[in-house]
Amino acid sequence: MQPEQLLPFIAETFNQMPFNRVLGLQVTRFDQQQVEVSFPWSAQLVGNPLQQILHGGVIASVLDVAGGMMAVASALERFTDIEQSELIARFGKMSTIDIRTDYLRPGRGERFIASAHVIRSGNKVAVCRMELHNEQNLHIALGTGTYLVG
Amino acid sequence: MQPEQLLPFIAETFNQMPFNRVLGLQVTRFDQQQVEVSFPWSAQLVGNPLQQILHGGVIASVLDVAGGMMAVASALERFTDIEQSELIARFGKMSTIDIRTDYLRPGRGERFIASAHVIRSGNKVAVCRMELHNEQNLHIALGTGTYLVG
Amino acid sequence: MQPEQLLPFIAETFNQMPFNRVLGLQVTRFDQQQVEVSFPWSAQLVGNPLQQILHGGVIASVLDVAGGMMAVASALERFTDIEQSELIARFGKMSTIDIRTDYLRPGRGERFIASAHVIRSGNKVAVCRMELHNEQNLHIALGTGTYLVG
Amino acid sequence: MQPEQLLPFIAETFNQMPFNRVLGLQVTRFDQQQVEVSFPWSAQLVGNPLQQILHGGVIASVLDVAGGMMAVASALERFTDIEQSELIARFGKMSTIDIRTDYLRPGRGERFIASAHVIRSGNKVAVCRMELHNEQNLHIALGTGTYLVG
Repeated sequence: MQPEQLLPFIAETFNQMPFNRVLGLQVTRFDQQQVEVSFPWSAQLVGNPLQQILHGGVIASVLDVAGGMMAVASALERFTDIEQSELIARFGKMSTIDIRTDYLRPGRGERFIASAHVIRSGNKVAVCRMELHNEQNLHIALGTGTYLVG
Repeated sequence: MQPEQLLPFIAETFNQMPFNRVLGLQVTRFDQQQVEVSFPWSAQLVGNPLQQILHGGVIASVLDVAGGMMAVASALERFTDIEQSELIARFGKMSTIDIRTDYLRPGRGERFIASAHVIRSGNKVAVCRMELHNEQNLHIALGTGTYLVG
Repeated sequence: MQPEQLLPFIAETFNQMPFNRVLGLQVTRFDQQQVEVSFPWSAQLVGNPLQQILHGGVIASVLDVAGGMMAVASALERFTDIEQSELIARFGKMSTIDIRTDYLRPGRGERFIASAHVIRSGNKVAVCRMELHNEQNLHIALGTGTYLVG
Repeated sequence: MQPEQLLPFIAETFNQMPFNRVLGLQVTRFDQQQVEVSFPWSAQLVGNPLQQILHGGVIASVLDVAGGMMAVASALERFTDIEQSELIARFGKMSTIDIRTDYLRPGRGERFIASAHVIRSGNKVAVCRMELHNEQNLHIALGTGTYLVG
């Protein structure tokens, strides 16, 4: 695969992950600098039904997905040509080491957008910062994730 | 409500939360010292289908639920008699401030058990530590959560 | 004290804290939006002497100071007139609940500047993000801190 | 160096680090399972002088030292024979990636003991949990640290 094919391939892999489908996630932007993962409000994503807000776990999940995608992108960016089989093998070794999620406001809205960027990029470990906003650009949560990439 | 009714009521509230039902969570133990929240393996909880392991967000979600329940229990423990309506009102003000999740091993197993205990209990903030094991007692993840309780 | 006196008073209090003096910290900027805490390179702040870089604990310390100052500033900002004795009493109840520090690059430089801003401001809890740069604006570390303010 | 010489050598290296000497740290126990780093109360370690408690940065520093020592021990444990020069070279590559510190109680006491154990040990990354107690075994703080070890 050529570099220009890598990102769409990675995005599609994340779109197809079973739990990402449960959450309704869609990768709506993905380049070497930033990623956006979006999902619509859905009744099954609610935590406390009295408050009608997103479950904290939904927020942690989508922040982890956005951070993980940027970590993968930063790790693969040095390859000029890579076999799809090797790409998949490398994927299999990448994983989240730890993640912190900070909840800033109740998760209310019609549509939510998680974004991420890389703040430390190494050949073993990448660190990303992530944010979640709703469709009115209200800042709902942020996160910091450390990823094993090599 | 009398104190002995509080914990079952809280457990049932968490069991009924829409996203907890998506995850298949069941509160299987809950007293003032410890909580256990269990769920079976399910294909829809998978992250990377090649590895067939739990999505990291599933793990973060259940750790947050277990920690949140202990935070609630510690906050409500000083009431000797509380109206159900007031209990619900207090519930509505409790929330996760931040949570750190550490992933130790791939999320493989037939059944998973999240446990939590309180390490700081105040009238405004509670801090809990959480762990996730599978049915063979393999330690999969741990977490630390800070909760607003008052 | 009037509001315009509060920030200089808080800054001086932090400047005089014994351990901040050991670290050589000076509050070099402090308003309602941002704080800067600076310190020069010093041989006694070194961790591993072979590498000649700042000890990780020095970095965590100054990030906590910068975050704590912004948390205090955000909590006191609603007072239009406050007795110095009450201000001191409130100070005594404010504390760091938890802090995460991410180390991005080795701590090398002649002068270091920690900055912070508030990302969640409540009457009980404030959350801040902090950064450490050197005199060449190289980004060395960042942090996220949760503070009890009420 | 033989394995039995490694741990005392590592302990001495940490004892001699300039900032650890400022803090008054002494490695008082160190084997493959656990480490203890102790220090006495000292007026220069105080944060807020009105409260006469340890500065939060002192606590974060000693937790990082204890965690880092266990991470190093876990990484070096597979060597049966290693040149001192190579050991030093490997030391130089080990570093803290991120650390979370939770403050549970005010840092009061005559003597403080930080302990740590490894919860994830890999050839690239180690994760440790750390605790700080005073001489009366009062639990003051805990931490979780992720370390680059390979």
